Amino acid sequence: MDRYELISRYLINFIRQEVCKTGLSKVVIGLSGGIDSAVVAVLAYRALNNNLLCIKMPSQHSSQSSLDDAEELCRIFKLQSETHSIEPMLRVYQTPDMSPLRIGNLSARLRMVTLFDISAREAALVLGTSNKSELMLGYGTLYGDLASALNPIGDLYKTEVFELAHYLGIPSSIINKPPSADLWAGQSDEAEIGYPYSELDHVLKCYVEERHTREEMIQDGKNPKLVDMIINRIYKNQFKRRMPLIAKLTSRTVNHDFNYPRDITL
Amino acid sequence: MDRYELISRYLINFIRQEVCKTGLSKVVIGLSGGIDSAVVAVLAYRALNNNLLCIKMPSQHSSQSSLDDAEELCRIFKLQSETHSIEPMLRVYQTPDMSPLRIGNLSARLRMVTLFDISAREAALVLGTSNKSELMLGYGTLYGDLASALNPIGDLYKTEVFELAHYLGIPSSIINKPPSADLWAGQSDEAEIGYPYSELDHVLKCYVEERHTREEMIQDGKNPKLVDMIINRIYKNQFKRRMPLIAKLTSRTVNHDFNYPRDITL
Repeated sequence: MDRYELISRYLINFIRQEVCKTGLSKVVIGLSGGIDSAVVAVLAYRALNNNLLCIKMPSQHSSQSSLDDAEELCRIFKLQSETHSIEPMLRVYQTPDMSPLRIGNLSARLRMVTLFDISAREAALVLGTSNKSELMLGYGTLYGDLASALNPIGDLYKTEVFELAHYLGIPSSIINKPPSADLWAGQSDEAEIGYPYSELDHVLKCYVEERHTREEMIQDGKNPKLVDMIINRIYKNQFKRRMPLIAKLTSRTVNHDFNYPRDITL
Repeated sequence: MDRYELISRYLINFIRQEVCKTGLSKVVIGLSGGIDSAVVAVLAYRALNNNLLCIKMPSQHSSQSSLDDAEELCRIFKLQSETHSIEPMLRVYQTPDMSPLRIGNLSARLRMVTLFDISAREAALVLGTSNKSELMLGYGTLYGDLASALNPIGDLYKTEVFELAHYLGIPSSIINKPPSADLWAGQSDEAEIGYPYSELDHVLKCYVEERHTREEMIQDGKNPKLVDMIINRIYKNQFKRRMPLIAKLTSRTVNHDFNYPRDITL
């Protein structure tokens, strides 16, 4: 069996089983027009027989081509969708002194707010769409796009998400455009991070999966600037991959010593 | 030394050290007028020499007495504060079909959005104000009031927060009023959960700290309905105490197998 056929079957099962465990039967997904949310939407569609609702949440900073791509995906796969612009909330909050970064993080969080509210309306779970490259590099907004109930693609590097997208039949307009968080006009992941995902993922895999050290990677011929940038980002952004740090006072502190499982049978 | 003097010294140190580790020197706190945020604000004030900014974020659902109590606290302890109403965002988002629960969760999340945006403006960290009773019972909004960078009181039960508030000299108007999330008029924690915090904390401590079983607690004379309600809430709300569940595909999955520490020296 093809590697991505196997991965796709596994992830479809993951979605089906984990949604079922919560007692719910439906999911909602924020559909940006990008490749990550497209892959998650198609996996969820195949897991839940269209028991999913895709939410498009544009702002004035979203590109028209992203909206078109999201619409095209819904048309091809017959996905149910709704549009909830975050522009009204942005407009009443925004002040002229805000940097693009602040507006970007604000936008990502207002999308989370919208998505979780709609999930309550629908008695549905929010599916996450952050891939492992983004999670490791901290390229995402804490309590924004990084927030979800279940994330089917959080253990796949971006280059693997591309392969999976091919396998799933995602339209080439979505696969071929430069990856972007689409938080402001002309934003590009690779320009912002400074390297193409192929190079980023190669170093990330050596460090995270194969546990090579910085010195081994450099001896091995990898670009020392790239290696240091990645290791630095991994540590610096650790806070985005964990729960709030609680001051420890007892022998059983939440997030330190224990967490009760969710899916235990009482 | 008095128990709460010791706890207070420890928590002041925790705030000072953990803020310092991130390279920042300032914190922001959402000040509701309730006892939890008042305790955190006073601890932070003592840790950081007033290098903190308190943010009051009322909506039309907030009671006037909460706002008065927050103002009184700032006056007594000379805390810097700003007011950012979430009402404009609520108003442009809200629809007539929304339940009080949805509006409550929405409000808690819009406060998080505001607080994290201001923390970016101020190059500050967001301090959390959820106590251990709330965390264990899941009485809070995921990605709302449960979101923060550091939480000094997450290992203190509500009844202990009261004791600490006495020790810190928090005004009695704040200590003596019935605890409320203040998400709608007349809301009361104890009415919603069904029992006073003294009873809740007693069972929580037996179960969480002393690891008594359900059967032992009931044999011991505790109310079986209360015991079952608490155990049920602990498990049901586990998702509020953990990061999104990621589908496992590699040998090193974020949140499953590893997390790099934040404060390592590279």
